[in-house]
Amino acid sequence: MTGIESLLEIYKNAVFQKDVEAYTSIFDEKVRVFDMWEKWSCDGLDGWREMAKGWFASLGTDRDVVTFDNIQIQATDELATATAFVRFTAVSEKGEELRYLENRLTWVARKKDGTWKVIHQHTSGPVDFETMKVILKR
Amino acid sequence: MTGIESLLEIYKNAVFQKDVEAYTSIFDEKVRVFDMWEKWSCDGLDGWREMAKGWFASLGTDRDVVTFDNIQIQATDELATATAFVRFTAVSEKGEELRYLENRLTWVARKKDGTWKVIHQHTSGPVDFETMKVILKR
Repeated sequence: MTGIESLLEIYKNAVFQKDVEAYTSIFDEKVRVFDMWEKWSCDGLDGWREMAKGWFASLGTDRDVVTFDNIQIQATDELATATAFVRFTAVSEKGEELRYLENRLTWVARKKDGTWKVIHQHTSGPVDFETMKVILKR
Repeated sequence: MTGIESLLEIYKNAVFQKDVEAYTSIFDEKVRVFDMWEKWSCDGLDGWREMAKGWFASLGTDRDVVTFDNIQIQATDELATATAFVRFTAVSEKGEELRYLENRLTWVARKKDGTWKVIHQHTSGPVDFETMKVILKR
Protein backbone atom coordinates (compact mmCIF):
# COMPACT_ATOMS: atom_id res chain seq x y z
CA MET A 1 0.00 0.00 0.00
CA THR A 2 1.44 3.33 -1.03
CA GLY A 3 0.38 6.91 -1.43
CA ILE A 4 -2.78 8.31 0.06
CA GLU A 5 -4.13 4.88 1.10
CA SER A 6 -1.22 4.44 3.49
CA LEU A 7 -2.08 7.80 5.10
CA LEU A 8 -5.56 6.49 5.91
CA GLU A 9 -3.96 3.59 7.80
CA ILE A 10 -1.59 5.86 9.71
CA TYR A 11 -4.53 8.10 10.59
CA LYS A 12 -6.57 5.19 11.95
CA ASN A 13 -3.71 3.86 14.08
CA ALA A 14 -2.62 7.28 15.32
CA VAL A 15 -6.15 8.08 16.51
CA PHE A 16 -6.51 4.73 18.27
CA GLN A 17 -3.13 5.19 19.97
CA LYS A 18 -3.87 8.88 20.72
CA ASP A 19 -0.43 9.53 19.23
CA VAL A 20 -0.20 13.24 18.39
CA GLU A 21 3.16 12.90 16.58
CA ALA A 22 2.01 10.04 14.35
CA TYR A 23 -1.24 11.92 13.70
CA THR A 24 0.44 15.16 12.66
CA SER A 25 3.11 13.32 10.62
CA ILE A 26 0.68 12.81 7.73
CA PHE A 27 -0.22 16.50 7.39
CA ASP A 28 1.70 19.21 5.56
CA GLU A 29 3.12 22.20 7.47
CA LYS A 30 0.74 24.46 5.54
CA VAL A 31 -2.33 22.22 5.77
CA ARG A 32 -5.71 23.92 5.37
CA VAL A 33 -8.41 22.18 7.38
CA PHE A 34 -12.14 22.80 7.07
CA ASP A 35 -13.13 20.91 10.20
CA MET A 36 -16.64 19.85 11.15
CA TRP A 37 -16.56 21.70 14.45
CA GLU A 38 -16.64 25.34 15.55
CA LYS A 39 -14.10 27.05 13.29
CA TRP A 40 -14.29 28.08 9.64
CA SER A 41 -10.74 26.93 8.99
CA CYS A 42 -7.50 25.92 10.63
CA ASP A 43 -4.43 26.93 8.66
CA GLY A 44 -1.06 25.40 9.42
CA LEU A 45 0.15 22.40 11.37
CA ASP A 46 0.64 24.17 14.72
CA GLY A 47 -3.06 24.85 15.15
CA TRP A 48 -3.93 21.39 13.90
CA ARG A 49 -1.57 19.79 16.43
CA GLU A 50 -3.37 21.68 19.23
CA MET A 51 -6.69 20.34 17.95
CA ALA A 52 -5.33 16.76 18.08
CA LYS A 53 -3.96 17.22 21.61
CA GLY A 54 -7.32 18.54 22.79
CA TRP A 55 -9.25 15.74 21.08
CA PHE A 56 -7.11 12.92 22.44
CA ALA A 57 -7.03 14.43 25.96
CA SER A 58 -10.83 14.78 25.94
CA LEU A 59 -11.18 11.02 25.51
CA GLY A 60 -9.81 10.27 28.98
CA THR A 61 -9.41 6.50 29.19
CA ASP A 62 -11.65 5.90 26.16
CA ARG A 63 -10.33 5.45 22.64
CA ASP A 64 -11.73 6.29 19.20
CA VAL A 65 -11.86 3.45 16.70
CA VAL A 66 -11.86 4.83 13.14
CA THR A 67 -13.48 2.97 10.27
CA PHE A 68 -13.60 4.15 6.66
CA ASP A 69 -16.43 3.24 4.32
CA ASN A 70 -16.90 3.77 0.59
CA ILE A 71 -13.40 5.14 -0.02
CA GLN A 72 -12.82 6.68 -3.45
CA ILE A 73 -9.31 7.58 -4.57
CA GLN A 74 -7.99 9.54 -7.55
CA ALA A 75 -4.26 9.88 -7.86
CA THR A 76 -1.58 11.14 -10.19
CA ASP A 77 2.18 11.16 -9.56
CA GLU A 78 2.12 14.31 -7.47
CA LEU A 79 -1.43 15.00 -6.32
CA ALA A 80 -4.05 12.63 -4.90
CA THR A 81 -7.47 12.82 -3.35
CA ALA A 82 -9.48 10.49 -1.15
CA THR A 83 -13.13 10.76 -0.15
CA ALA A 84 -14.90 8.51 2.33
CA PHE A 85 -17.43 8.16 5.11
CA VAL A 86 -15.72 7.92 8.48
CA ARG A 87 -17.10 6.42 11.67
CA PHE A 88 -15.58 7.30 15.05
CA THR A 89 -16.59 4.73 17.65
CA ALA A 90 -15.64 5.51 21.23
CA VAL A 91 -14.71 2.38 23.16
CA SER A 92 -13.97 2.03 26.86
CA GLU A 93 -10.80 0.58 28.39
CA LYS A 94 -12.68 -2.73 28.56
CA GLY A 95 -13.45 -2.53 24.83
CA GLU A 96 -17.15 -1.71 25.18
CA GLU A 97 -18.65 0.43 22.41
CA LEU A 98 -19.93 3.60 24.06
CA ARG A 99 -21.14 5.81 21.20
CA TYR A 100 -20.33 6.74 17.64
CA LEU A 101 -20.68 9.47 15.07
CA GLU A 102 -20.00 9.67 11.38
CA ASN A 103 -18.83 12.29 8.94
CA ARG A 104 -17.78 12.82 5.33
CA LEU A 105 -14.05 13.14 4.71
CA THR A 106 -12.22 14.78 1.82
CA TRP A 107 -8.44 14.66 1.66
CA VAL A 108 -6.08 16.19 -0.84
CA ALA A 109 -2.47 15.04 -0.60
CA ARG A 110 0.66 16.20 -2.37
CA LYS A 111 3.95 14.35 -2.80
CA LYS A 112 6.86 16.43 -1.57
CA ASP A 113 10.40 15.09 -1.61
CA GLY A 114 9.00 11.60 -2.14
CA THR A 115 6.56 11.71 0.78
CA TRP A 116 2.79 12.14 0.62
CA LYS A 117 1.34 14.77 2.95
CA VAL A 118 -2.27 15.86 3.39
CA ILE A 119 -2.46 19.49 2.28
CA HIS A 120 -6.22 19.81 2.76
CA GLN A 121 -8.81 18.08 4.92
CA HIS A 122 -12.54 18.81 4.86
CA THR A 123 -14.92 17.02 7.23
CA SER A 124 -18.63 17.60 7.74
CA GLY A 125 -22.05 16.12 8.24
CA PRO A 126 -25.08 17.13 6.18
CA VAL A 127 -27.40 19.71 7.76
CA ASP A 128 -31.13 19.21 8.26
CA PHE A 129 -32.85 22.16 6.59
CA GLU A 130 -35.73 22.33 9.10
CA THR A 131 -33.70 22.33 12.32
CA MET A 132 -30.34 23.59 10.96
CA LYS A 133 -28.78 20.79 13.02
CA VAL A 134 -26.01 18.55 11.75
CA ILE A 135 -26.82 14.91 11.05
CA LEU A 136 -24.25 12.68 12.76
CA LYS A 137 -25.31 9.18 11.70
CA ARG A 138 -25.96 7.80 8.25
CA MET B 1 -7.46 32.02 -17.02
CA THR B 2 -7.33 28.28 -17.47
CA GLY B 3 -7.96 25.14 -15.50
CA ILE B 4 -9.86 25.07 -12.25
CA GLU B 5 -9.96 28.90 -11.94
CA SER B 6 -12.06 29.12 -15.08
CA LEU B 7 -14.55 26.65 -13.57
CA LEU B 8 -15.08 29.00 -10.64
CA GLU B 9 -16.05 31.75 -13.10
CA ILE B 10 -18.44 29.50 -14.99
CA TYR B 11 -19.99 28.43 -11.68
CA LYS B 12 -20.56 32.04 -10.59
CA ASN B 13 -22.15 33.04 -13.91
CA ALA B 14 -24.26 29.89 -14.20
CA VAL B 15 -25.71 30.40 -10.72
CA PHE B 16 -26.50 34.08 -11.41
CA GLN B 17 -28.18 33.16 -14.72
CA LYS B 18 -29.91 30.12 -13.13
CA ASP B 19 -28.57 28.20 -16.13
CA VAL B 20 -28.76 24.48 -15.34
CA GLU B 21 -26.84 23.42 -18.46
CA ALA B 22 -23.94 25.82 -17.85
CA TYR B 23 -23.92 24.78 -14.19
CA THR B 24 -23.75 21.06 -14.89
CA SER B 25 -21.21 21.52 -17.71
CA ILE B 26 -18.37 21.92 -15.21
CA PHE B 27 -19.08 18.65 -13.37
CA ASP B 28 -17.99 15.14 -14.34
CA GLU B 29 -20.61 12.47 -15.14
CA LYS B 30 -19.44 10.53 -12.07
CA VAL B 31 -19.14 13.51 -9.73
CA ARG B 32 -19.32 12.75 -6.00
CA VAL B 33 -20.86 15.61 -4.05
CA PHE B 34 -20.81 15.97 -0.26
CA ASP B 35 -23.34 18.80 -0.12
CA MET B 36 -24.06 20.96 2.89
CA TRP B 37 -27.75 20.07 2.98
CA GLU B 38 -29.79 16.99 3.86
CA LYS B 39 -28.01 14.13 2.09
CA TRP B 40 -24.77 12.30 2.89
CA SER B 41 -23.75 12.24 -0.76
CA CYS B 42 -24.96 12.73 -4.29
CA ASP B 43 -23.26 10.44 -6.79
CA GLY B 44 -23.47 11.15 -10.50
CA LEU B 45 -24.50 14.10 -12.62
CA ASP B 46 -28.18 13.17 -12.98
CA GLY B 47 -28.90 13.66 -9.28
CA TRP B 48 -26.78 16.79 -9.21
CA ARG B 49 -28.72 18.28 -12.15
CA GLU B 50 -31.97 17.73 -10.21
CA MET B 51 -30.47 19.56 -7.22
CA ALA B 52 -29.56 22.52 -9.46
CA LYS B 53 -33.05 22.62 -11.02
CA GLY B 54 -34.65 22.62 -7.57
CA TRP B 55 -32.29 25.30 -6.24
CA PHE B 56 -32.78 27.68 -9.17
CA ALA B 57 -36.55 27.15 -9.21
CA SER B 58 -36.75 27.86 -5.47
CA LEU B 59 -35.31 31.35 -6.05
CA GLY B 60 -38.40 32.55 -7.91
CA THR B 61 -37.59 36.01 -9.28
CA ASP B 62 -34.55 36.39 -6.97
CA ARG B 63 -31.01 35.54 -8.00
CA ASP B 64 -27.98 34.27 -6.08
CA VAL B 65 -24.79 36.32 -6.43
CA VAL B 66 -21.75 34.12 -5.73
CA THR B 67 -18.52 35.57 -4.36
CA PHE B 68 -15.39 33.56 -3.56
CA ASP B 69 -12.96 34.59 -0.85
CA ASN B 70 -9.52 33.26 0.12
CA ILE B 71 -9.22 30.89 -2.84
CA GLN B 72 -6.32 28.42 -2.67
CA ILE B 73 -5.40 26.35 -5.69
CA GLN B 74 -3.03 23.41 -6.18
CA ALA B 75 -2.72 21.99 -9.65
CA THR B 76 -0.76 19.50 -11.68
CA ASP B 77 -1.25 18.62 -15.34
CA GLU B 78 -4.13 16.24 -14.69
CA LEU B 79 -5.51 16.87 -11.22
CA ALA B 80 -6.30 20.15 -9.45
CA THR B 81 -7.95 21.29 -6.26
CA ALA B 82 -9.48 24.56 -5.14
CA THR B 83 -10.62 25.57 -1.67
CA ALA B 84 -12.44 28.78 -0.79
CA PHE B 85 -15.10 30.48 1.28
CA VAL B 86 -18.22 31.12 -0.76
CA ARG B 87 -20.91 33.70 -0.13
CA PHE B 88 -24.36 33.33 -1.71
CA THR B 89 -26.18 36.65 -1.64
CA ALA B 90 -29.82 36.58 -2.73
CA VAL B 91 -30.80 39.72 -4.63
CA SER B 92 -34.25 40.79 -5.79
CA GLU B 93 -35.23 41.67 -9.35
CA LYS B 94 -34.54 45.30 -8.41
CA GLY B 95 -31.03 44.39 -7.26
CA GLU B 96 -31.70 44.72 -3.51
CA GLU B 97 -29.66 42.42 -1.24
CA LEU B 98 -32.15 40.26 0.61
CA ARG B 99 -30.04 37.79 2.63
CA TYR B 100 -26.83 35.80 2.45
CA LEU B 101 -25.14 32.70 3.75
CA GLU B 102 -21.60 31.39 3.51
CA ASN B 103 -19.94 28.02 3.30
CA ARG B 104 -16.58 26.33 2.80
CA LEU B 105 -15.98 24.86 -0.65
CA THR B 106 -13.58 22.10 -1.70
CA TRP B 107 -13.29 21.14 -5.35
CA VAL B 108 -11.23 18.42 -6.99
CA ALA B 109 -11.06 18.58 -10.78
CA ARG B 110 -9.58 16.20 -13.31
CA LYS B 111 -8.57 16.91 -16.89
CA LYS B 112 -10.24 14.51 -19.29
CA ASP B 113 -9.74 14.78 -23.04
CA GLY B 114 -8.30 18.25 -22.54
CA THR B 115 -11.22 19.56 -20.46
CA TRP B 116 -11.29 20.15 -16.71
CA LYS B 117 -14.29 18.71 -14.88
CA VAL B 118 -15.10 18.78 -11.16
CA ILE B 119 -15.04 15.18 -9.94
CA HIS B 120 -15.70 16.03 -6.29
CA GLN B 121 -17.38 18.90 -4.46
CA HIS B 122 -17.62 19.21 -0.68
CA THR B 123 -19.46 22.14 0.92
CA SER B 124 -20.23 22.72 4.59
CA GLY B 125 -20.40 25.15 7.45
CA PRO B 126 -18.78 24.52 10.83
CA VAL B 127 -21.06 23.16 13.56
CA ASP B 128 -21.51 24.77 16.98
CA PHE B 129 -20.76 22.06 19.53
CA GLU B 130 -23.30 23.31 22.10
CA THR B 131 -26.34 23.60 19.84
CA MET B 132 -25.28 21.17 17.06
CA LYS B 133 -26.46 23.86 14.63
CA VAL B 134 -24.54 24.87 11.54
CA ILE B 135 -22.92 28.31 11.47
CA LEU B 136 -23.87 30.11 8.24
CA LYS B 137 -21.94 33.37 8.47
CA ARG B 138 -18.24 33.94 9.09
